[in-house]
Amino acid sequence: MVFAALRQNNDAAALMAEMGIRARAASRPLGLATTDEKNTALQAMADAVRGRADEILDANARDMQRGEADGLAPAMLDRLKLDAARIEAIAKSLEEVAALPDPVGDVIASWERPNGLKISRVRTPLGVIGVIYESRPNVTADAGALCLKAGNAVILRGGSDSLESSSAIHACLSEGLRVAGLPEDAIQLVPLRDRAAVGEMLAGLAGNLDVIVPRGGRSLVERVQKEARVPVFAHLEGVCHVYVHEAADLQMAVDVTVNSKLRRTGICGAAETLLVDEAVAKTHLEPILSALSMGGCEIRGDENVRALFPQAHAATEEDWPKEYLDKIIAVKVVDGVEAASEHIARYGSGHTETIITQDEAAARRFMALVDSAIVLHNASTQFADGGEFGMGAEIGIATGRMHARGPVGVEQLTSFKYCVYGSGQTRT
Amino acid sequence: MVFAALRQNNDAAALMAEMGIRARAASRPLGLATTDEKNTALQAMADAVRGRADEILDANARDMQRGEADGLAPAMLDRLKLDAARIEAIAKSLEEVAALPDPVGDVIASWERPNGLKISRVRTPLGVIGVIYESRPNVTADAGALCLKAGNAVILRGGSDSLESSSAIHACLSEGLRVAGLPEDAIQLVPLRDRAAVGEMLAGLAGNLDVIVPRGGRSLVERVQKEARVPVFAHLEGVCHVYVHEAADLQMAVDVTVNSKLRRTGICGAAETLLVDEAVAKTHLEPILSALSMGGCEIRGDENVRALFPQAHAATEEDWPKEYLDKIIAVKVVDGVEAASEHIARYGSGHTETIITQDEAAARRFMALVDSAIVLHNASTQFADGGEFGMGAEIGIATGRMHARGPVGVEQLTSFKYCVYGSGQTRT
Repeated sequence: MVFAALRQNNDAAALMAEMGIRARAASRPLGLATTDEKNTALQAMADAVRGRADEILDANARDMQRGEADGLAPAMLDRLKLDAARIEAIAKSLEEVAALPDPVGDVIASWERPNGLKISRVRTPLGVIGVIYESRPNVTADAGALCLKAGNAVILRGGSDSLESSSAIHACLSEGLRVAGLPEDAIQLVPLRDRAAVGEMLAGLAGNLDVIVPRGGRSLVERVQKEARVPVFAHLEGVCHVYVHEAADLQMAVDVTVNSKLRRTGICGAAETLLVDEAVAKTHLEPILSALSMGGCEIRGDENVRALFPQAHAATEEDWPKEYLDKIIAVKVVDGVEAASEHIARYGSGHTETIITQDEAAARRFMALVDSAIVLHNASTQFADGGEFGMGAEIGIATGRMHARGPVGVEQLTSFKYCVYGSGQTRT
Repeated sequence: MVFAALRQNNDAAALMAEMGIRARAASRPLGLATTDEKNTALQAMADAVRGRADEILDANARDMQRGEADGLAPAMLDRLKLDAARIEAIAKSLEEVAALPDPVGDVIASWERPNGLKISRVRTPLGVIGVIYESRPNVTADAGALCLKAGNAVILRGGSDSLESSSAIHACLSEGLRVAGLPEDAIQLVPLRDRAAVGEMLAGLAGNLDVIVPRGGRSLVERVQKEARVPVFAHLEGVCHVYVHEAADLQMAVDVTVNSKLRRTGICGAAETLLVDEAVAKTHLEPILSALSMGGCEIRGDENVRALFPQAHAATEEDWPKEYLDKIIAVKVVDGVEAASEHIARYGSGHTETIITQDEAAARRFMALVDSAIVLHNASTQFADGGEFGMGAEIGIATGRMHARGPVGVEQLTSFKYCVYGSGQTRT
């Protein structure tokens, strides 16, 4: 891509405005692209990623050098680093998106009116999506592919640390679009390290950006949610709860709690708080907390918990809304489904919660009372994932209530229109 | 309602903030209200409107007096005026919303995963809705009822001209909520004429407003779309097109065009532009335009049109994107489906378009190419209406692409969550 604005000077505002106009222009032919054309592009992208692995690794080495010189934290450098296995994973992800069903054109609902009009609600692309992410270069391919599959143009703004890697991957995406005869402006990468580019995206590119998806840490998501003038698909945090109801099976309660907390502690679907019914605190608390302790988890309990499990540290008010993303769990004794759901409403983040119980009525009451994107019964909170839901790849998990909620997969990146078939009907 | 902020002083910001907090608090019990409770409230509201008709008429008389003194235009005064028939219509609308199916709890989709997890996508309320409208006092009842039926709390901000009428109607809504034991804060009316109240709503009431619906003229919608920091369900205008394809049946083309343009000219679904294929211009143009002319419609045509129908005025570039809302139509000769859809993409407003043709393939191509909320085949654009779609009452028509598009009825005022039923599954 050669941008007129960039040739002249490094004016981020002018460049971003031009990218917005190009994206909007590309979105129209892209919305009409066939499934075959989109899948041809995705396969050609995967082939290009494999074929240009050396170029990508070279670019990544330059990013790593720069990152080390800039004193990036080891965890950041690990996220940034690519190797042969990670490049193959990128290519595979592109093929997996190709294998997903194409949502565009799907008939979501259809009905006939007494006057003979046949009405269908048909899926269409959303338009232009902005993705703002941090150091993982693979997001360039993953997000670009998902947006393309749903017929959307996308503007990708990766972390400045990974610009060379992302640019090398983006070149493969452009090649795929060329091979399939689709507009290259369908997937644009912001070629600037200048953070002003993010500000321009948050302002909405003069109406040329329909939604923003931030992928990254809390501070990024917080800024995007606070400043964006366009809708945002995101979650700020996942303060997920496991609620052990009085009719819980003990072994299941142990297994699901340990898995919810400890399978992976750094993901948004990891449990952060355990609520246990007073009626079974004496029987259930000790086995569950011992299992967590044996897994290396620190326990922070309220007074009732500490009375029954003295090894627990004292929880403070600050623990209840806390997303540890670590081997720490806050534990509280509650009195029934209503109290549990009230605690969740007060301290939760609307992400994912689970109830463990053999009592179907209690489970249904919990499902009704708890207003989170995902509510589970007798299953681990770590299932909060588009892949686990059978939706294929996801671009993230949303806790907002508009348009997309829960895992945001290819279907959630679409809009719809009404197609109405008549035989000359006029309105009286 | 007695607001602490209002007792102390007339600080619109503090008052609105308090209304937001109250609405959010009411939205939780309201989301859990049963269908029976909501319908009991709606019926009690209708009864109260009938029972207090005299009070409402008195309040309306005061609004009318004030409006006349303020020199309101006759059209505005007509919109403001209530009489026995209009009050009965308000009561009937409330009963019609009671008769609509309750969307909350509907299972939109459900599936089972290979590991046995049963996943359902279940409708939930959206949360808190802000409705900003102008002088028609009936919107108080219509919008309040629709939001309630979908389990949402609502903050209503009517025109300052109709404040007394709206307050009298709102008292009936409050009575209905009381009768059903639902929180009165579920439907709040801004008790201020101060326009700063609108600004506070557009700013989002500190996260306590989830969506804004403007109901009114272009300047209101324009301001809301421009300034709102929360999502907006609206359309700015309806520049709707009738496209007469070369395979159109002539009589159908005449009937549908005349109905689309002239049945009612002041509604957003009224056609504003007629596109006619070159191939049938000689045969179809004259009969269609004569029928429009006989209906009192002014014709503004391009050169090709004027060559065949010399009575037509000359259309200028300003006519193509124009929403006349009057007995005027812009007419252009085009060369096929692609050209017609390009004209619509360039000049249309994404609201509603129709193709008249006996050629099914052409109709499907038009449906695919045209990216408007509603696309019809062989039917009048005036069917662009929630009632005509079988959706019951609507709060408006949206041309945005997020969440709601087309008629916004009770279903479009909902969100969803995922309910996942397991038997102890943990993630590996």
